[in-house]
Amino acid sequence: MKLIRFGEPGKEKPGIMDATGNYWDVSDFGEDYNEAFFETDGLSRLSDWIKKNQGTCPKVNDDVRLGPCIARPSKIICIGLNYAKHAEESGMAKPSEPVIFFKSTSAICGPNDNVIIPKNSKKTDWEVELAVVIGKKASYVSKEEAMEYVAGYCLHNDYSEREFQLERGGQWVKGKSNDTFAPLGPFMASKDEIGNPHKLRLWLSRNGEVIQDSNTDDMIFYIDEAISYLSNFMTLLPGDVISTGTPAGVGLGFKPPQYLQPGDVIELGIDGLGVQKQTAEDWK
Amino acid sequence: MKLIRFGEPGKEKPGIMDATGNYWDVSDFGEDYNEAFFETDGLSRLSDWIKKNQGTCPKVNDDVRLGPCIARPSKIICIGLNYAKHAEESGMAKPSEPVIFFKSTSAICGPNDNVIIPKNSKKTDWEVELAVVIGKKASYVSKEEAMEYVAGYCLHNDYSEREFQLERGGQWVKGKSNDTFAPLGPFMASKDEIGNPHKLRLWLSRNGEVIQDSNTDDMIFYIDEAISYLSNFMTLLPGDVISTGTPAGVGLGFKPPQYLQPGDVIELGIDGLGVQKQTAEDWK
Repeated sequence: MKLIRFGEPGKEKPGIMDATGNYWDVSDFGEDYNEAFFETDGLSRLSDWIKKNQGTCPKVNDDVRLGPCIARPSKIICIGLNYAKHAEESGMAKPSEPVIFFKSTSAICGPNDNVIIPKNSKKTDWEVELAVVIGKKASYVSKEEAMEYVAGYCLHNDYSEREFQLERGGQWVKGKSNDTFAPLGPFMASKDEIGNPHKLRLWLSRNGEVIQDSNTDDMIFYIDEAISYLSNFMTLLPGDVISTGTPAGVGLGFKPPQYLQPGDVIELGIDGLGVQKQTAEDWK
Repeated sequence: MKLIRFGEPGKEKPGIMDATGNYWDVSDFGEDYNEAFFETDGLSRLSDWIKKNQGTCPKVNDDVRLGPCIARPSKIICIGLNYAKHAEESGMAKPSEPVIFFKSTSAICGPNDNVIIPKNSKKTDWEVELAVVIGKKASYVSKEEAMEYVAGYCLHNDYSEREFQLERGGQWVKGKSNDTFAPLGPFMASKDEIGNPHKLRLWLSRNGEVIQDSNTDDMIFYIDEAISYLSNFMTLLPGDVISTGTPAGVGLGFKPPQYLQPGDVIELGIDGLGVQKQTAEDWK
């Protein structure tokens, strides 16, 4: 199943995308895709409900605005430097255990919303990432059982302001959290839709030129290891997002570095998880 | 007004504490102390409601379990190294601009719940802090107008696992987020209850011995500056918590360092914001 949310920002309705790419409004199911939904096996319940009710679900226009594919989670946890070449281009050592940082959930937006270059930003950068959505509460979970805690996957652009992140006195969250810095979607694919999450091409282009192009099999710490590891340091809640790191090709890695300019068009995708497109806009 | 939440973990009801320290159940007001409450001027609405309904509010026993004084916020933002002597005892430079880090909201618990020493922890540490609760959405707010965005204050013990925070490969959030690492309360005092938030003694004792003892006037970055600064890097949402840093006297600062042992009793307080008491318990 592929979950979408559509409509005005902050007033999104839940929907699904079918196998042919059509959107359907499932508001009558009566739930948003939030912690309570995932905690109570919402994916199975929604699937059963659709079997009985699909004839009555309104079709949604293709040109509707898509919101973030899930409701605001309790947290977005990111795995830093999780592709060896990206660690290298960032001038940092390949980590011996996962580097983790948070991103404010107020940064979440729809997959095709404009990205706002923050006030006083000179170094807004892109990062295509595979995001994992947690399906049930996880604390001290083993690597072997970790994948049971996954509800599904979606595409995430982990926008980052490098000056805020690296030159402003400490802790990366400062450069990861501005509004529109976390487009999620177009849809969340349930786990069964994605066979092996470590055999997916992921790519990103700027103004038509592909500048990130890698595969999730290049991750240093795989998803099962990341979940198990994280669950030693915090309880993962249903609906929480783990973003699994970006491959080489970010602006910081160019010589000299290149950053987002107003009007730039960023497109990105992951096999089986669709495509996002953002146009950069100056803060005003 | 002083807001409390009471009852079983996860099923807390809203209440208030009156001037004589009695607790009253205000469940009939029909709202929890969450983002929607603060966003819609809940403090004023609740105050008006109490004037009309206080005769019918059930009294709550003094020995009830107190939960966290507000519902789970979208984020807990902490200001690091915000007292000069604590920066020194941590072996770090006094920051030239605020150091910020996040703490998982799943760490929140009641003010007198046991603190759980995490699995494999050797260095669980304490940090008495003044926490600020945001009253309305804040983005690019000036220092002059920043205090208008404050709903109130509460006491917070920013428990920290120093090995997880400092020796496990990056970003402090890793040592700040275990369950029970964020006791909030006993109550949230609305802003009008606290005259000057920078003239408050704050202290913490371990097994009866006072080991942190300072005053909020010693902060490097005051609350107005912290809010204004943060609002450049993320949107603060109603109900969000900003924890303003801890003074000297944490376990890391002892020579040699001293950390929490099972059975230790930690008590802490801030003028006008009550007292917390936690007993340390091993993870099992």
